[in-house]
Amino acid sequence: MIIIGEKINGSIPSVGRAIEAKDAGFIKNLAKVQSEAGSDFIDVCASVEVSRELQTLKWMIDVVQEATETPLAVDSPSAEVCAKAIDFCNKPGLVNSVSMEGNKVEVVFPKIANTKWECAALLCDDTGIPKTAEKRLEVFEALMKKAKEYRIDPSRLHVDPLVEMLATSEDGINVIVKVMKEIRKQYPTIHVTGAASNVSFNLPARKIVNQAFVVLAVNAGLDSVILDPLNRDIRGLIYATEALLGNDEMCIEYINAYRKGLFGTQKPL
Amino acid sequence: MIIIGEKINGSIPSVGRAIEAKDAGFIKNLAKVQSEAGSDFIDVCASVEVSRELQTLKWMIDVVQEATETPLAVDSPSAEVCAKAIDFCNKPGLVNSVSMEGNKVEVVFPKIANTKWECAALLCDDTGIPKTAEKRLEVFEALMKKAKEYRIDPSRLHVDPLVEMLATSEDGINVIVKVMKEIRKQYPTIHVTGAASNVSFNLPARKIVNQAFVVLAVNAGLDSVILDPLNRDIRGLIYATEALLGNDEMCIEYINAYRKGLFGTQKPL
Repeated sequence: MIIIGEKINGSIPSVGRAIEAKDAGFIKNLAKVQSEAGSDFIDVCASVEVSRELQTLKWMIDVVQEATETPLAVDSPSAEVCAKAIDFCNKPGLVNSVSMEGNKVEVVFPKIANTKWECAALLCDDTGIPKTAEKRLEVFEALMKKAKEYRIDPSRLHVDPLVEMLATSEDGINVIVKVMKEIRKQYPTIHVTGAASNVSFNLPARKIVNQAFVVLAVNAGLDSVILDPLNRDIRGLIYATEALLGNDEMCIEYINAYRKGLFGTQKPL
Repeated sequence: MIIIGEKINGSIPSVGRAIEAKDAGFIKNLAKVQSEAGSDFIDVCASVEVSRELQTLKWMIDVVQEATETPLAVDSPSAEVCAKAIDFCNKPGLVNSVSMEGNKVEVVFPKIANTKWECAALLCDDTGIPKTAEKRLEVFEALMKKAKEYRIDPSRLHVDPLVEMLATSEDGINVIVKVMKEIRKQYPTIHVTGAASNVSFNLPARKIVNQAFVVLAVNAGLDSVILDPLNRDIRGLIYATEALLGNDEMCIEYINAYRKGLFGTQKPL
């Protein structure tokens, strides 16, 4: 499972305050603990007004790169900002994200075409988030056409089929499960990603819905996830699910992660 | 989801002591709390030597029936004891269990043939628990032949495909998932049951493995489960999974169960 650590995001109040105060120690610590918890990418999102987003991101990226060797996920709603922030990074990471909206792909794909950068891609376009699995797969097809055009190998893409909230869904997560399975079937080396917590919006006991969702999503092909890597419940469930699905013979990875203190009641390292 | 409450079992030390001491109040309380937590059947298992098993079961059944209207699951490794204990019950319940071992089916099926009793059936025979899905489905086929012979409708059967422990498994729970799906495909009205906790034997943080297992099992067709109905984590995950699978439109059952206090941090009733 590819873990994208989500804790350095200016929309989280304590992080927003640290960004305003240029509190490098606070940001460095978040980078360090997420790296130690086994994150594959450290997401860096400024969440400030556009006029100072790029300079804020530069400061954040510099600070995080002083604290850890873990690659970054440069995170902005603006494809232009993502493309420019790539230059601040001292090694290839993940662009978070493009979609088929506007010219996002045309801005980012040429920039990463001949690099080792990976890229998250949301399955929406200028019409919004398609309702049916078929329509979402049409957006996926258009995306893959662009990827081919710029020679971005499928293994460098993290496709996010965009889970919607369960509270107002008529058929649960069936659309997403269908899309996930089809994507993995068409491109076995592609990554399927998603946020672990959007699904439970507006429901009580959200944690429980998130937990069940992660298990079902891993079963459907999710192999990359944006989450708090210090969330011990979810981490444990992911290791357990991989073992139950037969992807962890003799439960060796499960047991090792437990021994490292990544989940369970054992004292964390 | 059909809930078979497992708490009245003489192999649990506190219950064993209550049975020895003929502590009817203790047993009655376990019956009452499990009934209030929404159990569909209250399992009653003596776990004493064969010579006094039937008389012990009679006492237990009498006590439980004084405490609750919920039907019983008469639970014994002996098919003869199950068949005789049926006569102690004042309404139809569940026989727990038969298998294709020895003459178990021939002892129990004629007894429940023209009744509303339901019956749990394990997919093992005199050769033990078959290793492959194909062999287990052969045992299932033999079982269904017997059921047909005695006119036991599939909707009265709770088939337990026998989950083995993950710690020594080479392919996770893939065999079980395949068997569960095939059983439900062949007989859409049949019930698929199982114990929620055997799978995690010999692993650390067992609770996490059990949680992930239940979600995957419900996804594969599990609609009947033997568990502690007061286990709030598992109950919540089952409600969440049903909603995620599209079996609970607008999450109404999930939200109602939460309001009743069956799971979540809300104070239980």
